[in-house]
Amino acid sequence: MPELRRDPIIGRWVIIAVERARRPKGLRGPHAAAEEKACPFCEGKEAMTPREIIAIRKEDAVANGPGWQVRVIPSKTPFLKVEGQVNRRGKGLYDVINGIGAHEVIVETPQHIANIADLDEVQIAKGITCWIDRVVDLGRDERFKYVQIFKNYGSSSGGGSIRHTRSQLIATPITPKRIKEELQGARSYFEYHERCIFCDIIRQEIETKTRVVADADGFVAMTPFASRFPFEMWIVPKDHNCDFSRMSVESRLYLGRMIKKVLGKVKAGLEDPPYNFVLHTAPFRRPKAKEGYWKTIEDDYHWHLEIIPRLTHSAGFEWGTGFYICSITPEEAAKYLRETETA
Amino acid sequence: MPELRRDPIIGRWVIIAVERARRPKGLRGPHAAAEEKACPFCEGKEAMTPREIIAIRKEDAVANGPGWQVRVIPSKTPFLKVEGQVNRRGKGLYDVINGIGAHEVIVETPQHIANIADLDEVQIAKGITCWIDRVVDLGRDERFKYVQIFKNYGSSSGGGSIRHTRSQLIATPITPKRIKEELQGARSYFEYHERCIFCDIIRQEIETKTRVVADADGFVAMTPFASRFPFEMWIVPKDHNCDFSRMSVESRLYLGRMIKKVLGKVKAGLEDPPYNFVLHTAPFRRPKAKEGYWKTIEDDYHWHLEIIPRLTHSAGFEWGTGFYICSITPEEAAKYLRETETA
Repeated sequence: MPELRRDPIIGRWVIIAVERARRPKGLRGPHAAAEEKACPFCEGKEAMTPREIIAIRKEDAVANGPGWQVRVIPSKTPFLKVEGQVNRRGKGLYDVINGIGAHEVIVETPQHIANIADLDEVQIAKGITCWIDRVVDLGRDERFKYVQIFKNYGSSSGGGSIRHTRSQLIATPITPKRIKEELQGARSYFEYHERCIFCDIIRQEIETKTRVVADADGFVAMTPFASRFPFEMWIVPKDHNCDFSRMSVESRLYLGRMIKKVLGKVKAGLEDPPYNFVLHTAPFRRPKAKEGYWKTIEDDYHWHLEIIPRLTHSAGFEWGTGFYICSITPEEAAKYLRETETA
Repeated sequence: MPELRRDPIIGRWVIIAVERARRPKGLRGPHAAAEEKACPFCEGKEAMTPREIIAIRKEDAVANGPGWQVRVIPSKTPFLKVEGQVNRRGKGLYDVINGIGAHEVIVETPQHIANIADLDEVQIAKGITCWIDRVVDLGRDERFKYVQIFKNYGSSSGGGSIRHTRSQLIATPITPKRIKEELQGARSYFEYHERCIFCDIIRQEIETKTRVVADADGFVAMTPFASRFPFEMWIVPKDHNCDFSRMSVESRLYLGRMIKKVLGKVKAGLEDPPYNFVLHTAPFRRPKAKEGYWKTIEDDYHWHLEIIPRLTHSAGFEWGTGFYICSITPEEAAKYLRETETA
């Protein structure tokens, strides 16, 4: 059984995913990862995966057969197990939760296409619809506090050797540290200013222009002012909304269009690098507004998508210190991407 | 001029190191990094580096010539500039500090040896003495709040292509986020228990034994309970001490011995992987104890060295979420390293 363990000093939870453990010697990464095996995510290969959770498919198509457009399946090697009750306990001075959670894979196309940027916007929007459906469904499970949606593209991003575009989600009985920090930071700002900090950032960025990569259909893509990594980018909805699962059907299409545009620029301008993205949204169990008190989270938090191209190898120092050194200004990065044309 | 910029939401400072910037296309990492150029860190090549700041050298040897054992030089491509006053200012809703700081390189041997584990303990202790000398000296500079000491070993750890063992230090006008978090976490624990959390962890680990890699001469090397990475390891002094620069001459030798032992195990047991280490110690400007109030930091914080072997590529998800997934238990990692014999 995997475990969630809490660092007793700084309070960060980690997953110790024992059942995925390889032998120590096998940990030295993909030595010969170039060879690609038969792809289990292609249409017609449904038998190679666990049974699907949901899919967008033709009306007459049968589950777990061909005829689908987006397909959500449990991970074959899950970090967390979905069966069981959440059991919090101490181990001496340490805190542990048994590894309850969900780990699913969203296969974003039946075709063998590696990069989501090469799908059309309608297809990307179907993937977004599946994200939303899964988050809403998992949110009904009282055991879970948060769902992480993320993508690893390219083998050095953790994406593995199978070049078929897909995203993943992990539902957890805790809210991850980064999200908590954002909630707290946004809260402090709101208490002082009575405004959402993300909304203020968007306004200032649109005015300044230098860090804006694209601005269309209610979404802004920008390189953050305090970028940690070269070409780090955020896609943020211009209208205030803490919870991405409340996005309209129209907005899903616009978000798909923006994802295609900016990841297309990353591909064209930066030699198709590996990248990760991760969706930050409000956690499920939000405190209710009290009279005479601010509505927490609803008013002060703002969902967004963070994109990190994997261009440099220098992360060890950053892991040890939480102190990032970025070798290109976000202004220069934004300018370069603005001027990069996609095919 | 480089800049320190603060993320307005979660308060993390980053260095935007503009003068190191390469063109966007040049960011795709070391394509042909295998070829090693003439080593500027070898004895006899002193003219290839900036003039030394301090060195341990024979009495009759002249500065910036041969005859040294450890040599500290300014970085040729510094992240921060040492000249000027710290100037904090706002840019709309953002916070900026001009990039004042020090960035130095500690060359740990005159010989062309790549891995610190291959030096003898006396030689490593001389490097530690130089760390201490530099930290004490930089601490006198009122502009600086913290000195990060760290090492990147191997090109994929950010260590570059020159295989000559060295560590680096960066003095900054801010305390890095990770250190602040540790200080706050240790403080909360102390307020409740009136004990140092690190001392409690050490006691429990020595009793439990399963995560201890080595225990000798007043130092414990252990895999942390909530390890983020396979074979992550901490070296912690058993005697309470918040400030590593107060280490005795004898302890430096013992720390050198422990570094050699555990990094030798990492080299022998894990196929000489890249790794990073970073020293966590108390910041310079510590609040004075008030009567009737706990002495902050002195009593509750505890310096230590964090080692991260670079065995996996899966960090992008972790960067986006602060949520780490470790594919081997710290207990299994510690057992493997305990049993690994070094040459």
